[in-house]
Amino acid sequence: MKTFILSTFFLLAGWSSAYGEDGSQLWLRFNSINTTVSVTGVKGTAMTELQTYWQGGPVVLKRQKGLAKDGYTIKSQSGKIVIAAASDAGLLYGAYHLLRLQQTGQSCDQLDISEQPAYDLRILNHWDNPNGTCERGFAGKSIFLNPNPERMKMYARANASVGINGTVLNNVNAKPEALSTASLEKAKAIADQLRPYGIRVYLSINFASPIKVGGLETADPLDAKVISWWKEKVNEIYKLIPDFGGFLVKANSEGEPGPQDFGRTHADGANMLAGVLKPHKGIVMWRAFVYAPQSPDRANQAYLEFMPLDGQFADNVIIQIKNGPVDFQPREPYSPLFTAMQKTQMMVEFQLTQEYLGAANHLVYLAPMWQEFFSFVKPGSLRAMAGVANIGDDTNWCGHHFAQANWYAFGRAAWNPALKPEEIADEWLRQTFSSDERMLGPVKQLMLDSREAAVSYMMPLGIHHIFAGGHHYGPEPWYSPKGLRADWTPPYYHRADSIGMGFDRTLTGSANVKQYPEALCRLYNDINTCPENLLTWFHHVPWDHKMKSGRTFWDELCHKYDDGVHEARHFLTIWDAMQSYVDQQRFSEVQRKLRIQARDSEWWRDACLLYFQTFSHRPIPQDVEHPVHNLDEMMKFRIPISMYENPENGYNK
Amino acid sequence: MKTFILSTFFLLAGWSSAYGEDGSQLWLRFNSINTTVSVTGVKGTAMTELQTYWQGGPVVLKRQKGLAKDGYTIKSQSGKIVIAAASDAGLLYGAYHLLRLQQTGQSCDQLDISEQPAYDLRILNHWDNPNGTCERGFAGKSIFLNPNPERMKMYARANASVGINGTVLNNVNAKPEALSTASLEKAKAIADQLRPYGIRVYLSINFASPIKVGGLETADPLDAKVISWWKEKVNEIYKLIPDFGGFLVKANSEGEPGPQDFGRTHADGANMLAGVLKPHKGIVMWRAFVYAPQSPDRANQAYLEFMPLDGQFADNVIIQIKNGPVDFQPREPYSPLFTAMQKTQMMVEFQLTQEYLGAANHLVYLAPMWQEFFSFVKPGSLRAMAGVANIGDDTNWCGHHFAQANWYAFGRAAWNPALKPEEIADEWLRQTFSSDERMLGPVKQLMLDSREAAVSYMMPLGIHHIFAGGHHYGPEPWYSPKGLRADWTPPYYHRADSIGMGFDRTLTGSANVKQYPEALCRLYNDINTCPENLLTWFHHVPWDHKMKSGRTFWDELCHKYDDGVHEARHFLTIWDAMQSYVDQQRFSEVQRKLRIQARDSEWWRDACLLYFQTFSHRPIPQDVEHPVHNLDEMMKFRIPISMYENPENGYNK
Repeated sequence: MKTFILSTFFLLAGWSSAYGEDGSQLWLRFNSINTTVSVTGVKGTAMTELQTYWQGGPVVLKRQKGLAKDGYTIKSQSGKIVIAAASDAGLLYGAYHLLRLQQTGQSCDQLDISEQPAYDLRILNHWDNPNGTCERGFAGKSIFLNPNPERMKMYARANASVGINGTVLNNVNAKPEALSTASLEKAKAIADQLRPYGIRVYLSINFASPIKVGGLETADPLDAKVISWWKEKVNEIYKLIPDFGGFLVKANSEGEPGPQDFGRTHADGANMLAGVLKPHKGIVMWRAFVYAPQSPDRANQAYLEFMPLDGQFADNVIIQIKNGPVDFQPREPYSPLFTAMQKTQMMVEFQLTQEYLGAANHLVYLAPMWQEFFSFVKPGSLRAMAGVANIGDDTNWCGHHFAQANWYAFGRAAWNPALKPEEIADEWLRQTFSSDERMLGPVKQLMLDSREAAVSYMMPLGIHHIFAGGHHYGPEPWYSPKGLRADWTPPYYHRADSIGMGFDRTLTGSANVKQYPEALCRLYNDINTCPENLLTWFHHVPWDHKMKSGRTFWDELCHKYDDGVHEARHFLTIWDAMQSYVDQQRFSEVQRKLRIQARDSEWWRDACLLYFQTFSHRPIPQDVEHPVHNLDEMMKFRIPISMYENPENGYNK
Repeated sequence: MKTFILSTFFLLAGWSSAYGEDGSQLWLRFNSINTTVSVTGVKGTAMTELQTYWQGGPVVLKRQKGLAKDGYTIKSQSGKIVIAAASDAGLLYGAYHLLRLQQTGQSCDQLDISEQPAYDLRILNHWDNPNGTCERGFAGKSIFLNPNPERMKMYARANASVGINGTVLNNVNAKPEALSTASLEKAKAIADQLRPYGIRVYLSINFASPIKVGGLETADPLDAKVISWWKEKVNEIYKLIPDFGGFLVKANSEGEPGPQDFGRTHADGANMLAGVLKPHKGIVMWRAFVYAPQSPDRANQAYLEFMPLDGQFADNVIIQIKNGPVDFQPREPYSPLFTAMQKTQMMVEFQLTQEYLGAANHLVYLAPMWQEFFSFVKPGSLRAMAGVANIGDDTNWCGHHFAQANWYAFGRAAWNPALKPEEIADEWLRQTFSSDERMLGPVKQLMLDSREAAVSYMMPLGIHHIFAGGHHYGPEPWYSPKGLRADWTPPYYHRADSIGMGFDRTLTGSANVKQYPEALCRLYNDINTCPENLLTWFHHVPWDHKMKSGRTFWDELCHKYDDGVHEARHFLTIWDAMQSYVDQQRFSEVQRKLRIQARDSEWWRDACLLYFQTFSHRPIPQDVEHPVHNLDEMMKFRIPISMYENPENGYNK
């Protein structure tokens, strides 16, 4: 009967919704209709936005001391709505809050809202190169290559609407020319466009800039000439961009230069830059993403390098740490630095661009992953949040319509990490698609389930980093070219052999567990108490290890992969039923992506199970679907793309 | 628990069975061991086979009058086994019967067997061309191109072991040079090799041979010079091949010449040839596969052309009729000629080569299809059985190891159409793989389910002929190039529109139902009594037509396709569990094919449902798996092969 009702409705609702949507309007799909709205008070961007898009009663914008930076109140007072804030930015955030209430269909009577952000710094990191490519970018070229004023305005509005107030314009693998005068003038132009929306710009710098741009013989951070060069350069920047935010630095990592090249520490390097920026109120965000090819466990490295420096960093240095100790995997434990460092300002770096989560092809809503992180790391222990942007010059900004939700959710979570993923998804869906409950319920659930599904079909039970070499799109657990450093190959991580698989990080292994607080260390160290979703992260698990389900580890692995495939297929079923509630263009475009995701999930399952089976020598259980691809063919398959592109199709296309 | 037990067994049984098998030995996998077996009596092939392979007690071969042609008895008499027959062929069939008992592990004590074949003529039709290609051949080149003595002997033994006693050496689309002297000498060489095994050779002839080979101006069957040319040609043949069987003729069909080109009837043509062959005891097998481009219903045509000739054919003419009225589809009703013609000798033509059933990639066991045919057409109403061979020079003969079962089953069914498909599968599996019950039960079931599964994922509910143009491998329900004759395009058959789909062959449509006996006509004519597995064959079925399941026709269609996909995947699960019971080579080779089949089943489902959905405008039900491929991409996909090759991979490879 259910089916019948659906079919009937389907017909009534009409097969094809005529108007197309290209996704360019993001979640800012306001109708600008001709109402005469009374908005009075402080002039500025907040007023402009409300005058253009607010459809309710009169609004008063007023400045009020005593409120927190960027905070605001919204109160109904004698027939008017009063937005108060200490700054223009606060007013703007209040205005967007009001517009969000309007767009999500909530009542705007009797408002008594008081908001302030959890973090002062809510920053996007663009990994954009001077030539316009975006590292791990799957949505076209850099939006900063030839900035289009309309697009820059939309970019600014989108960020401000969710509270993002900073943006690092260039790749952490920074070219020295980022600090050339031409480049700084370009940054100034962008800063001027973003300033009205409360957004500061930052730059990634190459630590060897004094040599490569300045012509000096060294970049030693304790060298007087070097310091003096940086001072001049920073002065030049602040002349152009008076509210410049500061530097993001990837140093002594993956071949980038850094203070260790000159016998100095990370603290020496960070503090020198911090000293130069301090008079201008600039900051240094110094990345903790370091690992050496010879390390017996890459997951240990950041802790080993940074813990000895705890307490040595200047007060305008923030150590920017990826959420996990390896590299943005579908699931990692949190980086132990977060709970270990006590005397250092820290910020978390999340990755919005889906380098390891199906690029712009797979629908993976990331808020649940961040919520999981915050269940281990107290939000209050951090100073700020950074997100590696998933934005490019594609019409729909993010390649996948649903990838926009990760941009949106990042801003909302950086404002308030206590927001639940379902609340954020609800807001985003209502603003971006519609408030029709027939769409909202199923699609919200799809979003909420999507990250766990991706973990299941890619790397369940703690498996990590078994991606294809280079582009990181598909499965290549076998990838291990001769001569490549071991920690860039999957076997380094999965360590499959005839006994079992997984990386022994227990006290008798790499002892990585010891970097965690005592209670967690004990929990993770024991294969019988270690959470199963991190089992092979911490243990070399025997194929016949008994799981909580009663199955052997091997059988459980097969079930997990197969569950992932079935979930990916189920997403398609859910989405297909939404045709009447979504415009035709976005419906079809998302459907194509979900189809790729479903096909890819089979590829992942088959590649991983057939490959690991060559070690386990155990059959795939009878009650899961069996591989339909052949291992030798999957091993021959390569997607011929760089790390700057989205693979437009999945396996075998 | 089931899984656990299986896994444990798997380990005990050992992961990989060391010895390889290439399938070249077919079902004749006798151990030739050094026993001193006493075989006495009539010398000949029967004796040789028994002396080489029989491992039991003494056997006596004796000739005995009064037994039916090709029949035999096998009796245990005072410690000996006595095989008696009226002819050498009968003795040979008896010998193979005894060897079959040995190979299938049955007791050979107390034997009291009496056998005789249902048909005198049990004939393979090879669609082999002089250049070595095989039309619709998926197992390599023609075995007759450069006949290898060892392979020819194996071919002869395989045929004789299941009672096949005739073979048409060349394609029914016959080149005139089939009757050239060089070609006849080649045929003689083959006949000489097959004769010891009781197999006669036949040739397909081109009706225009008198013009094209003989240099005459006409091939009019009533022309004296033409008749005289044929007489001489036939004399030439019989001089070379004294036991030559006769001619197979495709005339006035798909562009082949025939008597109608000269204003004569099929009967005129067939009877002329019959007259020439009669003195030599040769026969004419005249095909009823005719249809004209302008016919409003191709399914009507053979009946319309042949019924008026009923009773006019000579007594050594047999009309060879394909099992269904169109062309070897996954499911067709039987050809109505079989029950309509009363005064004409008829034989059925089955197609062993899987032109429309996944070529040499899909496992489809055909005996259930033939059983279905014989549930409508009484075996006794036919004179003979022909099977279009699936044999080529591939090492394993048929391309797919399980395609050998169709060759085997054809012979067995032609000997005894009452044999159940499961009995034949059982015999074949025991001889070809093993008698291990753990293999036998599941794999036999797989075979028995395979044809219905293929119907489900290709063309359920009476859909037919929606194959790719040319090679007929995949789905192309949209295939309709401008200018191509309509009955060579799928839309001619499926007739999908906004109302529904299917070919209206009722009394108010093409009236094809009227060609069937009264009771069947009534049954088929009414959409509410017509068997659902033929529904769109006989009716243009509205999308919302209520099916027996309670579902609408559209929903049922979706379910059927999806059931097919799940069955194809299930076959893989069954087969994967057989690894311990099957040699590694055949295990892997069959597994690869089953994987293609599972992937192809998705391709079929997706292509058909998405294409038909453009007419039905109805959603795919929520409780089936949704398409993972895109219609536009499937429509662009072409497999660049001819009709002489197996597509080595499936969709998107």
